[in-house]
Amino acid sequence: MSKYAFGIDIGGTTVKLGLFDEQGQLLEKWEIPTAKEHGGEAILPDVAASVLAKMEERAIVREDVAGAGVGAPGAVDAEGNLVNGAVNLGWGVFNIPEVLGGLLNMPVKAANDANVAAFGEMWQGGGKGYDNLVAVTLGTGVGGGIIVDGKILTGATGAGGEIGHMHVEDEETEVCGCKNQGCLEQYASATGIVRLANRRLAQDNKASLLREGKVTAKAVFDAVKAGDGLAIQVAEQFGEYLGKGLALVACVVNPQIFVIGGGVSKAGEILLSYVEPVFQKYTFNACRGARFALATLGNDAGIYGAAGLILREEV
Amino acid sequence: MSKYAFGIDIGGTTVKLGLFDEQGQLLEKWEIPTAKEHGGEAILPDVAASVLAKMEERAIVREDVAGAGVGAPGAVDAEGNLVNGAVNLGWGVFNIPEVLGGLLNMPVKAANDANVAAFGEMWQGGGKGYDNLVAVTLGTGVGGGIIVDGKILTGATGAGGEIGHMHVEDEETEVCGCKNQGCLEQYASATGIVRLANRRLAQDNKASLLREGKVTAKAVFDAVKAGDGLAIQVAEQFGEYLGKGLALVACVVNPQIFVIGGGVSKAGEILLSYVEPVFQKYTFNACRGARFALATLGNDAGIYGAAGLILREEV
Repeated sequence: MSKYAFGIDIGGTTVKLGLFDEQGQLLEKWEIPTAKEHGGEAILPDVAASVLAKMEERAIVREDVAGAGVGAPGAVDAEGNLVNGAVNLGWGVFNIPEVLGGLLNMPVKAANDANVAAFGEMWQGGGKGYDNLVAVTLGTGVGGGIIVDGKILTGATGAGGEIGHMHVEDEETEVCGCKNQGCLEQYASATGIVRLANRRLAQDNKASLLREGKVTAKAVFDAVKAGDGLAIQVAEQFGEYLGKGLALVACVVNPQIFVIGGGVSKAGEILLSYVEPVFQKYTFNACRGARFALATLGNDAGIYGAAGLILREEV
Repeated sequence: MSKYAFGIDIGGTTVKLGLFDEQGQLLEKWEIPTAKEHGGEAILPDVAASVLAKMEERAIVREDVAGAGVGAPGAVDAEGNLVNGAVNLGWGVFNIPEVLGGLLNMPVKAANDANVAAFGEMWQGGGKGYDNLVAVTLGTGVGGGIIVDGKILTGATGAGGEIGHMHVEDEETEVCGCKNQGCLEQYASATGIVRLANRRLAQDNKASLLREGKVTAKAVFDAVKAGDGLAIQVAEQFGEYLGKGLALVACVVNPQIFVIGGGVSKAGEILLSYVEPVFQKYTFNACRGARFALATLGNDAGIYGAAGLILREEV
């Protein structure tokens, strides 16, 4: 008898859903819109209806489903309570497994979406085979998810792994989204890289491919690959901030591996080449064995990790 | 039927032992010398003999002993393997529970001594009532021990919580014991505070109590209490480094509480007054609820934590 699990990743615009077999293979994935109206009251009923419809479509009986995992955009404690609600969904404080489990009549586990994505990369992605892992997501911001001995490090208030807000620069004058100044995410995110590039471009008139089009993180790394001197300086600055930041992280949680994902990571292995040597220079000697890998699951990391909350102990 | 456990803290000079009841009360503590000769081969037999003699002395039968916990000065993995040996004891790589458990005929658990001390402060000390905790030991160096959801964070190579070696200063020219430059322990340890004070004293001829005797961390904080302006500058600098460093730690593991111990912490609450405001300024807003407390178990933290490895789940 084959077993299944559902992985559910609730975002502000769409809910991603995935059906997995017990070996952790993604059998099918689909999306539904996130119904944020009226405090998001329809979101979980919509999710439940979609899951139950999929079971009917595939003639999967309840007994063959191990459960459903959920990633939610907010702090979630070990019992699945959304401790501060989820402002992007209009949700207040409640227990996700209780509500969705009631609708689905199956075991439900929930965790923060960034942490769930980290869990997914550990289970079936770039960190497969490791159980002490730090996942770093370089997108609009810098997100982090930490796995210790195979378990998500949630932290006291769900802020475990908020490495994008480590203070790494005393001289910063611009303010981060979190209202502090000098956060890692001001230098190592997609927007941070653009800021570093624009600052560098304004310094002098040195020729650069970056003067020709829109400055984006992708344009910076494309120019690096083309040998552009100015872009290389920007990449070095980015690597200096991120490598030093991860060296600090290693002194705290001493992971086996860093898995780097998010839009910026599409630059590929060249990105790691700017980060890893800086990391090695600044971290504690006992932490130098940490490996660096690129994330492999992309936007599916959330549904993988959510299903993994249910299936991993069984795999 | 009352139950007992032994807590054993193996140091380079002495082994501290403690007999605890199942409520975690320390009934008796004593020490034996650490026999480091011949690769430390007699250390565990000596420990076993001392434990068995204590049981005989008190007429405690084997059935009433839940087990013995051990803190060892080296990296210890989750199974109790001393993964790199213990250079201070002359020990190579072996499994502590296997060897000592064989000698004692009882369950034995082992962990790194700094982590065990952190566990002790959580179980019966300054962090009692919390299970997400960072213990910071300000002694000759800066040690750390991290507890996540009631469990020691060991890390991939036993370097979890090595926060003394976080790189926090780019301008440093002196070299840390770990061979890096700009480690937190170069500013926040007892020796680090002396260095900061000596540097400040050399800057100019400003009057200070610190010019009158030997400059120690204790002398600095005594002078702070006496209102000495120069000493206050040194304390502010210390607080800036440590507060910022712990702000970084909070963005990674998001603890409920920081418990500050070690010789420097004998300065008392005034020490926290230099650290906590800096922490609050630099950490991520979701981490600002973290409390600060002084360690309360002193040199007994190790035997408490070691016994706690055995007893805590039963308390």
